[in-house]
Amino acid sequence: MPIVECIPNVSEGRDQAVLDACGDAIRGAGARLLDVKPDATHHRTVFTFAGEPAAVKASALALFETALARIDLRHHKGEHPRLGAVDVVPFVPIEGVTMADCVAMAREVGADVARRHNLPVFLYEEAAAVPARRNLEDIRRGEFEGLPAKLKQPEWAPDFGPAAPHPTAGASVIGARVALIAYNINLATNRLDVAKKIAAAIRQSSGGFRYVKAMGIELADRGIVQVSMNLTNFEKTPMFRVFEIVKREAERHGVSVLESEIVGLVPAAALTASAAWYLQLEGFKDDQILENRLR
Amino acid sequence: MPIVECIPNVSEGRDQAVLDACGDAIRGAGARLLDVKPDATHHRTVFTFAGEPAAVKASALALFETALARIDLRHHKGEHPRLGAVDVVPFVPIEGVTMADCVAMAREVGADVARRHNLPVFLYEEAAAVPARRNLEDIRRGEFEGLPAKLKQPEWAPDFGPAAPHPTAGASVIGARVALIAYNINLATNRLDVAKKIAAAIRQSSGGFRYVKAMGIELADRGIVQVSMNLTNFEKTPMFRVFEIVKREAERHGVSVLESEIVGLVPAAALTASAAWYLQLEGFKDDQILENRLR
Repeated sequence: MPIVECIPNVSEGRDQAVLDACGDAIRGAGARLLDVKPDATHHRTVFTFAGEPAAVKASALALFETALARIDLRHHKGEHPRLGAVDVVPFVPIEGVTMADCVAMAREVGADVARRHNLPVFLYEEAAAVPARRNLEDIRRGEFEGLPAKLKQPEWAPDFGPAAPHPTAGASVIGARVALIAYNINLATNRLDVAKKIAAAIRQSSGGFRYVKAMGIELADRGIVQVSMNLTNFEKTPMFRVFEIVKREAERHGVSVLESEIVGLVPAAALTASAAWYLQLEGFKDDQILENRLR
Repeated sequence: MPIVECIPNVSEGRDQAVLDACGDAIRGAGARLLDVKPDATHHRTVFTFAGEPAAVKASALALFETALARIDLRHHKGEHPRLGAVDVVPFVPIEGVTMADCVAMAREVGADVARRHNLPVFLYEEAAAVPARRNLEDIRRGEFEGLPAKLKQPEWAPDFGPAAPHPTAGASVIGARVALIAYNINLATNRLDVAKKIAAAIRQSSGGFRYVKAMGIELADRGIVQVSMNLTNFEKTPMFRVFEIVKREAERHGVSVLESEIVGLVPAAALTASAAWYLQLEGFKDDQILENRLR
């Protein structure tokens, strides 16, 4: 059974009735709703759902239908930047599905919602038509309020839909990307400078691994520090490599790794790849995993 | 979805028509047939199938029906010891099923085939009623030919069925056990003595880990040696611990581990546990694996 994950970010983090309606819409259209994370300060909610491609596509369309009827960005204020009522919709290949399949889904859903709702749609990350649109932050710059001016610029003509914002829903950014893993490593020390130095050493922005975002933070209640990370492409920058270099960098400061933690969901392949690397498994195939044979 | 695996050993390794009939019987009754491994020298075939408990039970019963009608042990000669036409039938908990559930399945199937076919049945391993019947080799000692005498001894009265052998099918041994992993570690040396010493150090029979069977063998075509193992309880003697001690023992002889390999199927939990151990994951729960949430 092929599996796609979808993690839409919706610009509503306070009205439970709206969030319930969105959740019901997702479930009703066939995908499995795995998680709902509202944030009142950001006035924004992250939904996570997954299932077979056809079900995920139907659920994404149902979410647009429901959210656009209930969210009015003209009255929306939160701490998180946003361009639209359904702000960002990434499709993620999990199993038996290629990135190209997810790019195709993003295009289909984008064309469909643009037509149904007269909504400008930008395609981002792997689904981007040009390199300048890969990065979500670049597309979102100017936010909802800046959309009328932005859409008039030829280089920001939308990929689908009109070159004018939807009056209440702005525009949406739809795309495809690899699964993201929220991964933290705790150090057996209270020295925040060590966590910050390690974070700087491993993150892309300061010369580290390409698909790592990292910062050093204090866990004051436990008297320890943490290297808090997002792994944005676990196939190209895998968990085991990040863990091993963090351990080595800590050692250089006379510090030990206490433990690590995965926050939220992780694709099985990220763990399997780690087991295979540490155990030096040669010629291992995923269909040797008994459970995979029963899908 | 709860999953049980069943790995019956049938005393026929040469007649493809009989093996096909057995495979069809398994599939037809609802379980998924994952593997068929005939061995002409042993005159014996190992079937592997899995699925929901009810389907696995039905498939096991169907296999007895088909195999008992086609196999006559009075004319059977092979290198592998055997007691019956359907010689050994273990049920293995894979997911969402306890060992107690598998013991119950073994008892139900045992009672059922004893009644339907007038067949003596012994329960073994986790399903054994007394410690003396845990070990398959003890039950099988004397083989098909010794059954009439063995069954007359009070301590070898069958758990189900008559105290006399089935004329053509002998008796069957049915039980429950944890999944077995066939796991090999290749060393970057041609020194067979090193592989043999490591095997002796880690196996239960000579003082090593309780759930490890191991021997040192030569891979002559590659000019290397191998520690060839069966891990008979990966929860209590896990892969990562075995791998690490083999690596350390090799090091003591100035030898490196070249690679390891899993032969055949492995439960996902064995790999997940290895990843969690190496990555020092704390508080990790199996329902954080995205695919598990979709079952």
